[in-house]
Amino acid sequence: MPRQLREEKVFKDPVHKYIYVQDETIWNLINTKEFQRLRRIRQLGTSFMTFHGAEHSRFSHSLGVYEVARRIISQFERNGYADWPSEERLLCLCSALLHDIGHGPFSHSVEKVFGTYHEEWTCKLVLGDTEVNRVLSEADSELPRKVSEVICKSYEKEIVVSLISSQLDADRMDYLLRDAYFTGVHYGTFDMERILRVIRPHRGHIVVKESGMHAIEDYLMSRYQMYWQVYFHPVTRSSEIGLRKIFERAKRLYGDSYPFRFLMGPLVGLLENNLSIGEYLELDESYIQMTIMQWSKEQDPILSDLCERFLHRRLFKYAATDARDEPLERELRSGLAAAGIDPDFYLEIDSITDMPYDIYRPGDEEESLPILLLSDQEGLTEISRKSDIIRSISGIHRGKQHIYYPEELVRDRASALPSSIRKMLGLDGV
Amino acid sequence: MPRQLREEKVFKDPVHKYIYVQDETIWNLINTKEFQRLRRIRQLGTSFMTFHGAEHSRFSHSLGVYEVARRIISQFERNGYADWPSEERLLCLCSALLHDIGHGPFSHSVEKVFGTYHEEWTCKLVLGDTEVNRVLSEADSELPRKVSEVICKSYEKEIVVSLISSQLDADRMDYLLRDAYFTGVHYGTFDMERILRVIRPHRGHIVVKESGMHAIEDYLMSRYQMYWQVYFHPVTRSSEIGLRKIFERAKRLYGDSYPFRFLMGPLVGLLENNLSIGEYLELDESYIQMTIMQWSKEQDPILSDLCERFLHRRLFKYAATDARDEPLERELRSGLAAAGIDPDFYLEIDSITDMPYDIYRPGDEEESLPILLLSDQEGLTEISRKSDIIRSISGIHRGKQHIYYPEELVRDRASALPSSIRKMLGLDGV
Amino acid sequence: MPRQLREEKVFKDPVHKYIYVQDETIWNLINTKEFQRLRRIRQLGTSFMTFHGAEHSRFSHSLGVYEVARRIISQFERNGYADWPSEERLLCLCSALLHDIGHGPFSHSVEKVFGTYHEEWTCKLVLGDTEVNRVLSEADSELPRKVSEVICKSYEKEIVVSLISSQLDADRMDYLLRDAYFTGVHYGTFDMERILRVIRPHRGHIVVKESGMHAIEDYLMSRYQMYWQVYFHPVTRSSEIGLRKIFERAKRLYGDSYPFRFLMGPLVGLLENNLSIGEYLELDESYIQMTIMQWSKEQDPILSDLCERFLHRRLFKYAATDARDEPLERELRSGLAAAGIDPDFYLEIDSITDMPYDIYRPGDEEESLPILLLSDQEGLTEISRKSDIIRSISGIHRGKQHIYYPEELVRDRASALPSSIRKMLGLDGV
Amino acid sequence: MPRQLREEKVFKDPVHKYIYVQDETIWNLINTKEFQRLRRIRQLGTSFMTFHGAEHSRFSHSLGVYEVARRIISQFERNGYADWPSEERLLCLCSALLHDIGHGPFSHSVEKVFGTYHEEWTCKLVLGDTEVNRVLSEADSELPRKVSEVICKSYEKEIVVSLISSQLDADRMDYLLRDAYFTGVHYGTFDMERILRVIRPHRGHIVVKESGMHAIEDYLMSRYQMYWQVYFHPVTRSSEIGLRKIFERAKRLYGDSYPFRFLMGPLVGLLENNLSIGEYLELDESYIQMTIMQWSKEQDPILSDLCERFLHRRLFKYAATDARDEPLERELRSGLAAAGIDPDFYLEIDSITDMPYDIYRPGDEEESLPILLLSDQEGLTEISRKSDIIRSISGIHRGKQHIYYPEELVRDRASALPSSIRKMLGLDGV
Repeated sequence: MPRQLREEKVFKDPVHKYIYVQDETIWNLINTKEFQRLRRIRQLGTSFMTFHGAEHSRFSHSLGVYEVARRIISQFERNGYADWPSEERLLCLCSALLHDIGHGPFSHSVEKVFGTYHEEWTCKLVLGDTEVNRVLSEADSELPRKVSEVICKSYEKEIVVSLISSQLDADRMDYLLRDAYFTGVHYGTFDMERILRVIRPHRGHIVVKESGMHAIEDYLMSRYQMYWQVYFHPVTRSSEIGLRKIFERAKRLYGDSYPFRFLMGPLVGLLENNLSIGEYLELDESYIQMTIMQWSKEQDPILSDLCERFLHRRLFKYAATDARDEPLERELRSGLAAAGIDPDFYLEIDSITDMPYDIYRPGDEEESLPILLLSDQEGLTEISRKSDIIRSISGIHRGKQHIYYPEELVRDRASALPSSIRKMLGLDGV
Repeated sequence: MPRQLREEKVFKDPVHKYIYVQDETIWNLINTKEFQRLRRIRQLGTSFMTFHGAEHSRFSHSLGVYEVARRIISQFERNGYADWPSEERLLCLCSALLHDIGHGPFSHSVEKVFGTYHEEWTCKLVLGDTEVNRVLSEADSELPRKVSEVICKSYEKEIVVSLISSQLDADRMDYLLRDAYFTGVHYGTFDMERILRVIRPHRGHIVVKESGMHAIEDYLMSRYQMYWQVYFHPVTRSSEIGLRKIFERAKRLYGDSYPFRFLMGPLVGLLENNLSIGEYLELDESYIQMTIMQWSKEQDPILSDLCERFLHRRLFKYAATDARDEPLERELRSGLAAAGIDPDFYLEIDSITDMPYDIYRPGDEEESLPILLLSDQEGLTEISRKSDIIRSISGIHRGKQHIYYPEELVRDRASALPSSIRKMLGLDGV
Repeated sequence: MPRQLREEKVFKDPVHKYIYVQDETIWNLINTKEFQRLRRIRQLGTSFMTFHGAEHSRFSHSLGVYEVARRIISQFERNGYADWPSEERLLCLCSALLHDIGHGPFSHSVEKVFGTYHEEWTCKLVLGDTEVNRVLSEADSELPRKVSEVICKSYEKEIVVSLISSQLDADRMDYLLRDAYFTGVHYGTFDMERILRVIRPHRGHIVVKESGMHAIEDYLMSRYQMYWQVYFHPVTRSSEIGLRKIFERAKRLYGDSYPFRFLMGPLVGLLENNLSIGEYLELDESYIQMTIMQWSKEQDPILSDLCERFLHRRLFKYAATDARDEPLERELRSGLAAAGIDPDFYLEIDSITDMPYDIYRPGDEEESLPILLLSDQEGLTEISRKSDIIRSISGIHRGKQHIYYPEELVRDRASALPSSIRKMLGLDGV
Repeated sequence: MPRQLREEKVFKDPVHKYIYVQDETIWNLINTKEFQRLRRIRQLGTSFMTFHGAEHSRFSHSLGVYEVARRIISQFERNGYADWPSEERLLCLCSALLHDIGHGPFSHSVEKVFGTYHEEWTCKLVLGDTEVNRVLSEADSELPRKVSEVICKSYEKEIVVSLISSQLDADRMDYLLRDAYFTGVHYGTFDMERILRVIRPHRGHIVVKESGMHAIEDYLMSRYQMYWQVYFHPVTRSSEIGLRKIFERAKRLYGDSYPFRFLMGPLVGLLENNLSIGEYLELDESYIQMTIMQWSKEQDPILSDLCERFLHRRLFKYAATDARDEPLERELRSGLAAAGIDPDFYLEIDSITDMPYDIYRPGDEEESLPILLLSDQEGLTEISRKSDIIRSISGIHRGKQHIYYPEELVRDRASALPSSIRKMLGLDGV
């Protein structure tokens, strides 16, 4: 039996009102330096450039995921469901709290360029020589291994994994509500208490009782709206691309032995792809932000320009096109190059299939944990087979693709560009 | 007539739902690098260590103050009040937007140690060689001077000043609502639309019509609750004190020619008290945060310890005492010193009169812009003369003072301390 | 130019925060006795038996529709859209306010039994000898006729009609938000301010700009959820059916010259289908409620039993079946009759196609005012052609039908029923 | 051990989100006809004439009080407080649910005229031959007696009584939140979860821990705002007075053997002050409303005029005066009489001390259950001794008194009135 705190601790939380901590292990995990570090990493990366309220950190989110998991489990326990493995409570709570512990700053952009992955880092931090590891081991020597397995989805009991990462998990429930709250968009909200009332453990799965179908439709519709209105917002994409170009330029320069004026500890590790745990922990958002400030004064004109753009929010503009047209894209690249604009760092063609966030796609092979509806007559059914709405939400979006480019630069040199490109980018007229 | 945007621009805002921009000058000010920099400075400094949601920036708040001012003015215009000087609209909006532009990172702590003041920097940024200055001058060559006068409260028309900084101004209305929203406490909310309905311009003042007294009571009660529950929260005070100790230690070391491993550009300017505008702008919260990370690896044990504490949120604990007792304090200092704990950096006695936030104190000499109630029979009256509640809110709080100290350090050496101190700090027993 | 009030009047409203009245005509209409009567008619009829908060009146809703219309028009005027016929402002506002003035108590049940229609009564009240008519005529002698045409959808300018009754009108926007607020379900809320920002007048229509498609999806999804969760709730249906049975029984008894103990003025008019305007106005929900109380003491056992059930909320239970099965239904009727239960008054087979509320069905012939999307390239398109989600929401729901019956009665006599019926109604087992 | 439902029942509630029922007794009580009758009695009487949203019933409120009591008890149980008498749980819940069961329609007005009191009726209904009595007795033969004692404040355990009716009870917590929600005023809201966290059972009392003082200040401030903005609103007072005048006129006429056209069952009982339980239950708001409709057609000109006014919301106007001035009031009465206006039915002088709602007045002799603060050092203290704000809220309001009168009537005959009265009522000028 895990040790309880003498007195319940409470965090004031704008999304869940209060977050309750009863277990000593949870309390100690929150106070580790690895967990406190999450205060220095924003939940939504560069989204704050589109939605100025989106300045909340992964620290808040991680507490929120813990709280959602705690409420689900407490509802399971209150109802005395036989299919709930009550001995897994602490494992679930720790995994919920720690599931993002390996996230670095602006992960979407950094990971793509440097091939670091937050899931790997999460395991390193849970299993390595860290305060988090010591707190977990103290509670139970098996706990670090189990937590890392839950987070990597290899833990033997699916029901534990699916509480933390499935199509209807504590992670998503918190981030949809939280991101909606902080951006200020209303359409990410759904009635979590209603969801809690319709889910239950059933033979190793978490399932939805049949009468709860509309509740799930509402939840998936919120998710759909958040993806299109917030997560995939083209201005946010533009800021992510801008950041990625900075790292790509720095990597190129480093490969070319460019003499950086500012280049310290973990940056070298990052560029050489051999960060130690200590360096990784040091590399928070302040570090990146301050580096960009310093690099805006570097002599390389591309690096300094890209950094200035990011700092002062002078983002690439975008133009929408219907589908990929490779010959035209080649022409675009060579046209820019001819006009003296390096397309490697000043052009991006972005289509939605590259997106880091996923929509519920039940047919998808990778989707091992879909949402299951339990009915008296028919047993378990994947939910989109029952709901037209979910089916249409799940359908792949006929997304336009976007071309990102620095408008003033291109406009200045528009006369040097072929008319097909000028037209594509809307540079003529008006 | 100020130039209008061809199409109104809109920001999604969680507090005011939408923020509307119609003037080209406002739009251009928002896009200056000095204004964008406010994204890198948190509105509530270290409060996020107490309320994890309080991670919002001065950028959001500044947009909010602008929006509140816009709504007040638009309500005055819609009602066609003769006493409203409609030619001052753009000046009001610019001043509202820019009133915090000179804020540096963690101002409360930094200003105390280094004697920089954000009001001064605001004037420097508005009047100096900056993008903000250029945008203002473009609209009207007198605008920079006027904006700086409004912000410094020396502008000739009181009504313009009081919209931006008085006891019932756009600044306070936004920050109370915003800080309540992001911390998640409900008691900072009041009905702003109701306030808008009861205020009006009257012979150079902004006054409240008599029937609006309860609305103002509600607003001041929210403010009172926010001060005691949020702004003066002892854990927040502890984190501010921790930060201040870092700067005090660094200043001492710099004076003693300590060889810092990490000490770059604006830090030197800060320590020598001769920052240029360019350096000041570079010195954002990332810079300070990253500096603290680096200094946690310095050889000076006090500096590195203080930085570690701040980074990992290992804050000083506090004990409450009823009133100052100087002999006991002296004993406390010498007791700590004897136990090998430098009281200059590990002890703080904090009483509420030092607080940077103010409560409405109508009797106060410094209060030149109190809240005035307008009645048919009696003309203008200062509001606390009519309301018992406001009078009791305004009364000086019989605040306990707090002693802040590093609990584990002191506890380790408790046996070396006199019993009077052990008792004061609650070190005996349990 | 319509006369303005000397001072704007304001109503506190829980849904729209404040409702603003500037026109004298609107103010006077609100104060007519016909409009005040709407306070005595609930907006959602018997829904309060399912959702206890749903006790709000048509008075509140009518003010709300007026306010939504006022905000739409004021946004059109502020943007100076050329396609908005500004001379129609007062007509729109009056029509919005009065669109439900002809509603009687529990209209869905009463209208079916007695063949009175609220649209007809609205015209009678607007055109007849009423206070409403006098107030309208005072403003403009043509106004009563025009208002009645707008409400009956025969007014020449489609744009005026569609503001009041189309697929995206002020009526629906208010009732979705209001019914969600009072029932307490969250899923009826959508962001009205966002909708206001994406609609505009365009060549005689109100259209949605292309980038607003997701906003409309969100609105239609709210509507869809409200229909399935609130308006079509089987318990609400059961209470409506219970009420209808009362009226059907009374009509039958009246036809059979049954000597009612309680039968006054307008009830006779109702039963004989020749209500005068005066009688119609007298017939509010209190009248019906009190009549049911009195009839619960009548000697006719069926009438008194049905009234008791309604009064004390002893509603018919329901069983779901997949599709109509006429032979089985005939067997059910005769089985009940054989068991001494009159199927005319104790049985109802209800399928969703009878429902009084509509879902957006763009293909429907009766739908003359669908939602149109305006794009630069393609001009106007009906919105479901662009959105998979709207298409799937609009699809006819494969609704089960429900059989309503008095459970205890039927259960008492279950042994007398054939087993096929016992099975259909779930009377065996457990 | 009380019997539990096989499956928890849930009501959707706009104020508490969900109301949970686990006990069979509670479920059965809700389904009694006496409890269902509360659906036909509005919580705030005639307040809907001032705040159109205030149409909610005592049914909703009673469920809410039950839910608040349930949450308080469940929090006490979860914390395992030794001072909580856990055997009293069902008694508390039943008392919370039933505390208003004896309320009749528009009680404030009716009780004053006819001397019926809802507390007495509550006991009659709980102890008499009713469904409620049968359900309670089934659970425990002592339960009816105990419930009636708790509601009448004579039950031996103070802690049980104070949960239901004290200065910080479930009743007030629900009605403040609920009335704020339905009227739409924001200032009645307070953070109930925060209150739950600071109260606890302590030696037979429910007390507030010292650090919870600001939470109580916030709660009492909400209450103060609600009283002045909602409960004591002069327009609401006017509608209550209008209704009282109707009953007073009817009583006078009945005494004078006036031949009423409409006078049925319980009305006679009411006028003769000998209502049976059955008649009392029949006398709901519909009955009164319909009676007023009928009486508006009586021949007595005063009765029919008063009824018309109430029906169509043509309320008495009011004028404020500073203090009672008996000679002037006598002059006013005789002046009206001389002008042919019967002052018994067309004049009311109302001062706030008559009000049916109370403010927290700790010094009051009648206040046997004040709010107690528990501190480690000082034990229990009445809270206003610690808080300036509560002391100032509790102070008796220097309320103006209001004179209510029918403006048009008086204005028509203004020339016949002495100038002192014309001035008092503001009839001259403008």
